[in-house]
Amino acid sequence: MKPRVKEILSWYGSDNPGTLTNLARILNCGRLGGTGKVIILPVDQGVEHGPGRSFAPNPAAYDPRYHFELAIEAGLNAYAAPLGFLEAGARDYAGDLPLILKLNNRENLSSDKDPLQSVTGSIEAALRLGCVAVGYTVYPGSALRTDMYERLQELAEEAKRHGLVVVVWSYPRGSDISKEGETALDVSAYAAQIAAQLGAHIIKVKPPGPHVEQEEARKAYEKAGLATGTLAERIQHVVQSSFDGRRIVIFSGGAAKGKEEIFEEIRGIRDGGGFGSIMGRNAFQRERSEALELLGDAIRIYQGEL
Amino acid sequence: MKPRVKEILSWYGSDNPGTLTNLARILNCGRLGGTGKVIILPVDQGVEHGPGRSFAPNPAAYDPRYHFELAIEAGLNAYAAPLGFLEAGARDYAGDLPLILKLNNRENLSSDKDPLQSVTGSIEAALRLGCVAVGYTVYPGSALRTDMYERLQELAEEAKRHGLVVVVWSYPRGSDISKEGETALDVSAYAAQIAAQLGAHIIKVKPPGPHVEQEEARKAYEKAGLATGTLAERIQHVVQSSFDGRRIVIFSGGAAKGKEEIFEEIRGIRDGGGFGSIMGRNAFQRERSEALELLGDAIRIYQGEL
Amino acid sequence: MKPRVKEILSWYGSDNPGTLTNLARILNCGRLGGTGKVIILPVDQGVEHGPGRSFAPNPAAYDPRYHFELAIEAGLNAYAAPLGFLEAGARDYAGDLPLILKLNNRENLSSDKDPLQSVTGSIEAALRLGCVAVGYTVYPGSALRTDMYERLQELAEEAKRHGLVVVVWSYPRGSDISKEGETALDVSAYAAQIAAQLGAHIIKVKPPGPHVEQEEARKAYEKAGLATGTLAERIQHVVQSSFDGRRIVIFSGGAAKGKEEIFEEIRGIRDGGGFGSIMGRNAFQRERSEALELLGDAIRIYQGEL
Amino acid sequence: MKPRVKEILSWYGSDNPGTLTNLARILNCGRLGGTGKVIILPVDQGVEHGPGRSFAPNPAAYDPRYHFELAIEAGLNAYAAPLGFLEAGARDYAGDLPLILKLNNRENLSSDKDPLQSVTGSIEAALRLGCVAVGYTVYPGSALRTDMYERLQELAEEAKRHGLVVVVWSYPRGSDISKEGETALDVSAYAAQIAAQLGAHIIKVKPPGPHVEQEEARKAYEKAGLATGTLAERIQHVVQSSFDGRRIVIFSGGAAKGKEEIFEEIRGIRDGGGFGSIMGRNAFQRERSEALELLGDAIRIYQGEL
Amino acid sequence: MKPRVKEILSWYGSDNPGTLTNLARILNCGRLGGTGKVIILPVDQGVEHGPGRSFAPNPAAYDPRYHFELAIEAGLNAYAAPLGFLEAGARDYAGDLPLILKLNNRENLSSDKDPLQSVTGSIEAALRLGCVAVGYTVYPGSALRTDMYERLQELAEEAKRHGLVVVVWSYPRGSDISKEGETALDVSAYAAQIAAQLGAHIIKVKPPGPHVEQEEARKAYEKAGLATGTLAERIQHVVQSSFDGRRIVIFSGGAAKGKEEIFEEIRGIRDGGGFGSIMGRNAFQRERSEALELLGDAIRIYQGEL
Repeated sequence: MKPRVKEILSWYGSDNPGTLTNLARILNCGRLGGTGKVIILPVDQGVEHGPGRSFAPNPAAYDPRYHFELAIEAGLNAYAAPLGFLEAGARDYAGDLPLILKLNNRENLSSDKDPLQSVTGSIEAALRLGCVAVGYTVYPGSALRTDMYERLQELAEEAKRHGLVVVVWSYPRGSDISKEGETALDVSAYAAQIAAQLGAHIIKVKPPGPHVEQEEARKAYEKAGLATGTLAERIQHVVQSSFDGRRIVIFSGGAAKGKEEIFEEIRGIRDGGGFGSIMGRNAFQRERSEALELLGDAIRIYQGEL
Repeated sequence: MKPRVKEILSWYGSDNPGTLTNLARILNCGRLGGTGKVIILPVDQGVEHGPGRSFAPNPAAYDPRYHFELAIEAGLNAYAAPLGFLEAGARDYAGDLPLILKLNNRENLSSDKDPLQSVTGSIEAALRLGCVAVGYTVYPGSALRTDMYERLQELAEEAKRHGLVVVVWSYPRGSDISKEGETALDVSAYAAQIAAQLGAHIIKVKPPGPHVEQEEARKAYEKAGLATGTLAERIQHVVQSSFDGRRIVIFSGGAAKGKEEIFEEIRGIRDGGGFGSIMGRNAFQRERSEALELLGDAIRIYQGEL
Repeated sequence: MKPRVKEILSWYGSDNPGTLTNLARILNCGRLGGTGKVIILPVDQGVEHGPGRSFAPNPAAYDPRYHFELAIEAGLNAYAAPLGFLEAGARDYAGDLPLILKLNNRENLSSDKDPLQSVTGSIEAALRLGCVAVGYTVYPGSALRTDMYERLQELAEEAKRHGLVVVVWSYPRGSDISKEGETALDVSAYAAQIAAQLGAHIIKVKPPGPHVEQEEARKAYEKAGLATGTLAERIQHVVQSSFDGRRIVIFSGGAAKGKEEIFEEIRGIRDGGGFGSIMGRNAFQRERSEALELLGDAIRIYQGEL
Repeated sequence: MKPRVKEILSWYGSDNPGTLTNLARILNCGRLGGTGKVIILPVDQGVEHGPGRSFAPNPAAYDPRYHFELAIEAGLNAYAAPLGFLEAGARDYAGDLPLILKLNNRENLSSDKDPLQSVTGSIEAALRLGCVAVGYTVYPGSALRTDMYERLQELAEEAKRHGLVVVVWSYPRGSDISKEGETALDVSAYAAQIAAQLGAHIIKVKPPGPHVEQEEARKAYEKAGLATGTLAERIQHVVQSSFDGRRIVIFSGGAAKGKEEIFEEIRGIRDGGGFGSIMGRNAFQRERSEALELLGDAIRIYQGEL
Repeated sequence: MKPRVKEILSWYGSDNPGTLTNLARILNCGRLGGTGKVIILPVDQGVEHGPGRSFAPNPAAYDPRYHFELAIEAGLNAYAAPLGFLEAGARDYAGDLPLILKLNNRENLSSDKDPLQSVTGSIEAALRLGCVAVGYTVYPGSALRTDMYERLQELAEEAKRHGLVVVVWSYPRGSDISKEGETALDVSAYAAQIAAQLGAHIIKVKPPGPHVEQEEARKAYEKAGLATGTLAERIQHVVQSSFDGRRIVIFSGGAAKGKEEIFEEIRGIRDGGGFGSIMGRNAFQRERSEALELLGDAIRIYQGEL
């Protein structure tokens, strides 16, 4: 076991050896294995955005096997998807890479005022599919957040009892949060803190922007003289807000965009002490060889080689 | 076991032998047995539309035994119905054909703004009645879809644990979907994807029309140059959206109509790579000999003989 | 066992011998025993209408023992009541006649827009009280019908597992149904069909009036040339809608009224192939000897003697 | 066992010996032991009205031990209180007098339109505290009554299985009931009937006033020539409505008031065949010796000595 | 065991030895050990106010280990925090000081009209983390209070069965309570009484102000001549309202403020017979040595030395 992985595991003193073993599996898998950095492939857009919008740009991606193979070939740390996609490949690729069952989802055929994700998976399913972790989305600030927090509490406790890792997607949303506020620095930091306090082992938030949403936070930042000018500085505050860096916090990239833009973001995450990226559309909506090249470059950035 | 059935079973690598056995029972039953094509008789209109409207056109159909016999004599793959209809014949026709217990239903005595189906059956009932599968309807886009998805999650997990097959009727509906949108190409494909991601073994959607409902989908289709002009092409996209054809997806026919219209639709389903039809009113609202002839012709179309 | 009872039992092929035994107990009890016809005494008006309005016309009826004795002395098939009334006599009259525990009730101290019955009994209570059956009311068409259907699903499954008979009171109600529509022919037939599909062994509906509520049903009736002019003809359609007569369907009488009116109604039920009556207020709000005479006459009508 | 107690126990033929034993403990305790009359001390005003308003008039009553001692010294039949008050004395006074755990409560810091009580105790707590009974309030007529009835159904069934007695406080309330209607004769009788049908062993209602709330009840009373002029006559109708006197029904006194007024009310209860009183504020808000004298007089009225 | 601790334990006669042992652990820990006074460090502001606003004033406090060490070094009686913070240190500081798992929380990203806390922890988690107690917040007066009370009932019963101590934060809130009313004397006393009746072993309320919110309470206070002029007098009434001082009731300090103000408050708590303080922001938002000095002074006030 590499020292950095040992160090990271040491932060999770309340977990049983089963969960630590599974966490180590994620940290040790792929080309970033042992570095303490991770890149995860998430593919829940089939539910979140619909199949055409998600997979028409690269029709090979309609096939659930495609994503297993992409993650394996690129040398990523793990692959996260809803029940159906995992069921469609878990036997064929058993043991080839760590799997994360995304436990809740939301389709966009209805524009709910109070966003909520529906639970579509279970700990039992994660175990029978050989997953190392479960993933769960919360929307802090949503009027329905209590439902989401309380289901997570039950699912996370059950997951930990069975030696699974808990990954929490924390996306602030709701009528009291402005559009810009959803990725505001204070709100992103708050989202990370909430996920950590809810008992997440791995936290996923969006990269924080320079905006500060809550007045009280703005005052506190000013008084403390917090540096927020660069992405790296803002990432650093989110890492700090994740138990002073003692929880793994990774960042999503959002909609597909140009390579340079992606690389700049990843360098910011790396330099700010972030633990890695979760890259979906930027990976699977590109043609396979192009995606492999992009993921290879991302890995090299985290390795400090690019 | 015919090679095509073996191939289809190979897609369901996460299921236990019990579920595969029951799936094989459906695929191997009747005149389409072994071809990988299926025709299922569903009779839930007694609840959905009322007995007079459903059975007055062919009064023999008031008797629950009629439908068992119709499905057996026509050589169909399975018969699906709510609890009461199955309880009224499961002993008399035990072992004669695969049964599917429809677990939820909705009567039309109230015009709900937020459509929801009520759970009227259980896995326990399916097992004690000797069923090979359970059926469940979701309304993607409905304000109450979370209720439906989460109940399905629990029921499907329980069904799989007990070796049953899960059939999902996926009918988009709700205030954000236009009437035309309910059978729009993108929406039908989305409905199929959702059912697949929810873990369905067999997916039932309506035949997709040429309309495209969501702007983002329209853009993606145009960019990808997706062919959508013929029913066969549209069926192909729905099949593609069902895990690139690695999930059984079948199509319903809707209200009773003329034979030629029905046959044209079935040819479209067949030519687009669809796995079959679920024919209710078009079958049981016709007089018995006429229905048998119609079903016989439908079978021959799927056999490529008509 | 009389042939008619054997025949009726043969319709319930999915039930265990425990449930058949209890169903036979109802069919074989009292002066109609063995004929396949039944009269049941229901006394839930203490809850539904209040004690004064229910029992002041015949104060002896305040005493829970009165109703047991009335049903026994009149030679009825069974007695149905809420928990309290059954608890107050089940030991004293143990074994004297079949008991039906009414599992849900509704008091009229509040005029709910969305009618719902409250569950006030349980399968466990039915078993410890020696009941042969449980009774349950659904309001098809009510905005809260899903609650009622789903609770019934659970209770009925549990009842059948424990060898109890399930009696469903099916009373359409709700904002989309007109007052006249509540007893419309199509709606009554629909109510019976729903109860049958929900798995009821015995169905209780109100006698159908000549009105037809739903346009689609009206068209279907006209096309099929359904005769609906006499009560007997309408009863026949409700019986037909109860799985072509393969489920026991009985009819309530409503508010207390004159003897001749009652007898006419019973003759209509008999001539239309109905299985019997459930007579509450018409029985217990009359003085004892008068009630016994009335019930005796009703029995003789079903026996074809009056 | 005194004959009257034996007689009363004989009405509860559906209960197990455990429940009968506990019912006998209440009936045999204190100075009214064996007479079939009961006086119970209830102290839930700390929650219902707040501590200052409840106990400032007699500060000794802030101490939970005070109420145990008051009930014991006065020779009452039982003491009823919420979880906290019982936990604070159950060991010290173990075996000294029968305890009733009040399972639900409502504080008055919010003026709900739809009144509801919160469940704050459990059968498990009642058993570990050595209670002989549980108490539960329902609000017939409240929009939330179904919640209250269904929770009571579950708790009462569990209580009876474990040999506990069930005491139901039945207080009609809700937007369809006038203020005067809350203690109307017909409404009080209805409240008693509902509690009895829900399976209560002991029923607690407010003394009925001369007003009649529901038109249908008024007609029935007039037609039956029911005497309602005196409190005794009205009590008699409530007793009659409690299964013709075969359920123990007791009456509360309400706000603290003058001694003579209290005594008149008790005489009315006694003369109308009521089974006793539940006296809270009139007892514990008086200074100890004064309260003991008052309770002593109340006992003597029930003994026919005053 | 010091006599005062023995005395305090004697008030909890209904608890099992497991709970008493854990209560003794709190009372015997730290520099106030054995005095019957307690100071607890609570750190749930990361969730309640966000990480920046909470920890930027003293960045060392981002690290979950900081708070364990602060509480240990200051010689406090216990440390209370949500799941995440406890999980992040429970192994490293196992056995070093009593831990309290805060079971529910509320973030401030949404301004709910009806405040509610979300359950984010469980009894199972408290046990696996070695906690001696669980903490739970109720909002008496909130429209959603029934939810909070009923969850507490279940959690507290489970906690007691497993030998844990139950600490209840009781913060009145809701549309019927004025802002000033939230800390009104009568409302604070009511809040303490409610927590006690709900079965709390330790009650936490805010220090009561001189305002009296409810008219009925004002009348009762005046009639009883209750002294309410000084904080000590008001504390005395809250202690009295906590079962006449037979329940441990402690007070929170609110927002960070000047030392003298804090000390005055603590003297009032002490002189009024309060059992101690729960000090969060005033402790962890100060730099470590300053915080230790402040906590040391607070301890000396409770020891009567300052």
